[in-house]
Amino acid sequence: MKIVSWKDLNEQERVDILTRPATADDGSKAKLVADIISNIRNRGDEALLEYSRKFDRLESDHIKLTADEIKSACDRVDSELKTALKNAYDNISMFHRAQKPAPVVVSTRPGVTCELHTHPIDSVGLYVPGGSAPLVSTVLMLAVPAQIAECPKVILCSPPPVSDAIVYAATLCGVNDIYTVGGAQAIAAMAYGTETVPKVNKIFGPGNSFVTEAKKQVSADFRGAAIDMPAGPSEVLVIADESANPAFAASDLLSQAEHGPDSQVVLLSTNPNYGNEVIAEVEKQVQQLSRKDIANRALEKSIAIVCESLEEACAISNIYAPEHLIVETREPRALLPYLRNAGSIFIGGWTPESVGDYASGTNHTLPTYGYAKTCSSLGLADYLRRYTVQEATTEGLTNLSRTVELMADAEGLTAHKRAVTIRMDILNGAK
Amino acid sequence: MKIVSWKDLNEQERVDILTRPATADDGSKAKLVADIISNIRNRGDEALLEYSRKFDRLESDHIKLTADEIKSACDRVDSELKTALKNAYDNISMFHRAQKPAPVVVSTRPGVTCELHTHPIDSVGLYVPGGSAPLVSTVLMLAVPAQIAECPKVILCSPPPVSDAIVYAATLCGVNDIYTVGGAQAIAAMAYGTETVPKVNKIFGPGNSFVTEAKKQVSADFRGAAIDMPAGPSEVLVIADESANPAFAASDLLSQAEHGPDSQVVLLSTNPNYGNEVIAEVEKQVQQLSRKDIANRALEKSIAIVCESLEEACAISNIYAPEHLIVETREPRALLPYLRNAGSIFIGGWTPESVGDYASGTNHTLPTYGYAKTCSSLGLADYLRRYTVQEATTEGLTNLSRTVELMADAEGLTAHKRAVTIRMDILNGAK
Repeated sequence: MKIVSWKDLNEQERVDILTRPATADDGSKAKLVADIISNIRNRGDEALLEYSRKFDRLESDHIKLTADEIKSACDRVDSELKTALKNAYDNISMFHRAQKPAPVVVSTRPGVTCELHTHPIDSVGLYVPGGSAPLVSTVLMLAVPAQIAECPKVILCSPPPVSDAIVYAATLCGVNDIYTVGGAQAIAAMAYGTETVPKVNKIFGPGNSFVTEAKKQVSADFRGAAIDMPAGPSEVLVIADESANPAFAASDLLSQAEHGPDSQVVLLSTNPNYGNEVIAEVEKQVQQLSRKDIANRALEKSIAIVCESLEEACAISNIYAPEHLIVETREPRALLPYLRNAGSIFIGGWTPESVGDYASGTNHTLPTYGYAKTCSSLGLADYLRRYTVQEATTEGLTNLSRTVELMADAEGLTAHKRAVTIRMDILNGAK
Repeated sequence: MKIVSWKDLNEQERVDILTRPATADDGSKAKLVADIISNIRNRGDEALLEYSRKFDRLESDHIKLTADEIKSACDRVDSELKTALKNAYDNISMFHRAQKPAPVVVSTRPGVTCELHTHPIDSVGLYVPGGSAPLVSTVLMLAVPAQIAECPKVILCSPPPVSDAIVYAATLCGVNDIYTVGGAQAIAAMAYGTETVPKVNKIFGPGNSFVTEAKKQVSADFRGAAIDMPAGPSEVLVIADESANPAFAASDLLSQAEHGPDSQVVLLSTNPNYGNEVIAEVEKQVQQLSRKDIANRALEKSIAIVCESLEEACAISNIYAPEHLIVETREPRALLPYLRNAGSIFIGGWTPESVGDYASGTNHTLPTYGYAKTCSSLGLADYLRRYTVQEATTEGLTNLSRTVELMADAEGLTAHKRAVTIRMDILNGAK
């Protein structure tokens, strides 16, 4: 982890140091994923089973978990972990329930009512990666808002063998349609449907580069499915001053670094000595991690930047637009008005990133890779669609008629104008 | 416009009749647009001027309107049209102001605070098509929410020569950075920036197939820009019973048909005689339109479907997921609970589509092409990004610590666990 002073960098160096590495793609991955999608569309379950046996060593002869399998899986989960998952579920539920939008009803003119309502999306598919570390927290983060939004159909896919804890977490959220399929083939199955896996309208969840590519491809096809947000490597930016415990900042940087070798980790501090203390702590703590090798590879590309002031640190953070932003300063709340473009902000030394990753109640699905400049952190809104309703009475139409006719004239759209005129003629004739 | 009975169709015919035509693309358009984008990125203004002269016969030597040009343009706008635009502006402002979200602040456990806030997106670019009919209403629909969201930077591009009414409408909304560029080159300029046109974070607005393709391409690149929503041909679906005036329903179908030859127009009625009456009215009224040829081409592919009941009509509408849904029945509000997946719903015979297209206050930027199943009608939310803030006190961290540690254990993420443990050790040691 190298340390640099912002003031020593020229304009181009500043741009470069905050630029995320481009994800390598020679087009072969896109081609492979396109083939998988095409095969799933053409041959459905048959292809899905083939891929699952080939890529994920599926052993089962069926891909939808039976009620018995679900029950057995839940029975096997350790009771202490069950309690932890229930606690997290309660907190996440409470925070997402509070996000329920109230309908908007406005009378813009006498006789004219404009309304904004929401509906849950009809069907959603949740993808939960498997592999060495089953992301049980991801189940809660994706399924709780679907439950609160009351999406009529919620399904979940995860590569075989689906971990017991994932099954338990799904049932906690009322999700009982669980499919033991993963990878690009799972995304294709949910986007287009197979004999067994129903087609859904929107797909949520993280995944490896094949999953990400598949989500990109199915969302670019209007016959496919929408997706939650574009994906990139996970990242954290920590703003800390000398009041912060270097061991805390180091532990937060490492929480991110252990996610994957392409994770991004940035420290902004106002003091070079402090920056070096954190780096020393990082180098010490990393030795104790089970995923030490992964974390070390992420740290190789990571940077500590020394800033002239906390205001400058905020400005740098706003340019970078981090997924997670941890503020460990003397008065962390005082910086909030200066902070923009972050997925989630963690306030103060007692709020490590892992609190939000698991259990505080906020969603851990956040925009990465600079997308925090335009994308939102995942929330209830992503499971709802907003639509408008409007009603004009005869009085209302009368009040709007001249405005509509003049604007339609200006746009040269006769039929738009006539739709009003034809009605006004009847109203005027009836007088 | 042909008429069919839903009950006479077999399953495949039902799917086919509600399937939108695929937009033809042999890849040559994508290639051409990719070249334009690449040239704008490499050569900036120089390329932008070349394309504007070639495609849009730009005559000016500069592409940003000067303050004098803006003033002169505004002075030339007819005062009656100005009043109309102001009225529409007021209504649209009122409805979009009412959409301002309140912050969410929840204490999920003692000492744990979770918050949901919004920020305006830093910079947005609005695209307004030119051509035969300058879409002055589109300026209001795109710029009013940007103004209410308080986006710090708002720019507008429209092909040369920009109509006076467009300039006037822009200034009404506080937009004074107006560029006389159009097409894919304008989208590329806003996505990547040139010497004259600033790079923006998100691009809004409709356009021809080159603009649509350019928006698709720049939004797929993380260095590009986000976009408002995917685009397809405009469409309307009318549900009407015998209580509705066939001339009204016909005028609404024609409002849509005149948009373009690929517009989609669908009538659902519960009575074949009524359906035929509407078709006869359509054939009569179309003769009087200035854009008769365009409307006739759209009508060739349009359908009237006779349903067994209004409930069945609602179910069909939900499958089709229309951009505009007009309900002209005896008790239109009674159908609302059955209606899903529409961009905007127009209630009753005195609420023609053109009222919402221009002046009621709702936004006319709506999801087309079936995207209403997952996308929302454009609103204030599209100019804001939601982000979360969380804070744990020592008490809060203590309350969450065991849950986080157990879940991190289950996921095999040691550093996530240690970030909590290292803090709890200090808290416990301090006791």
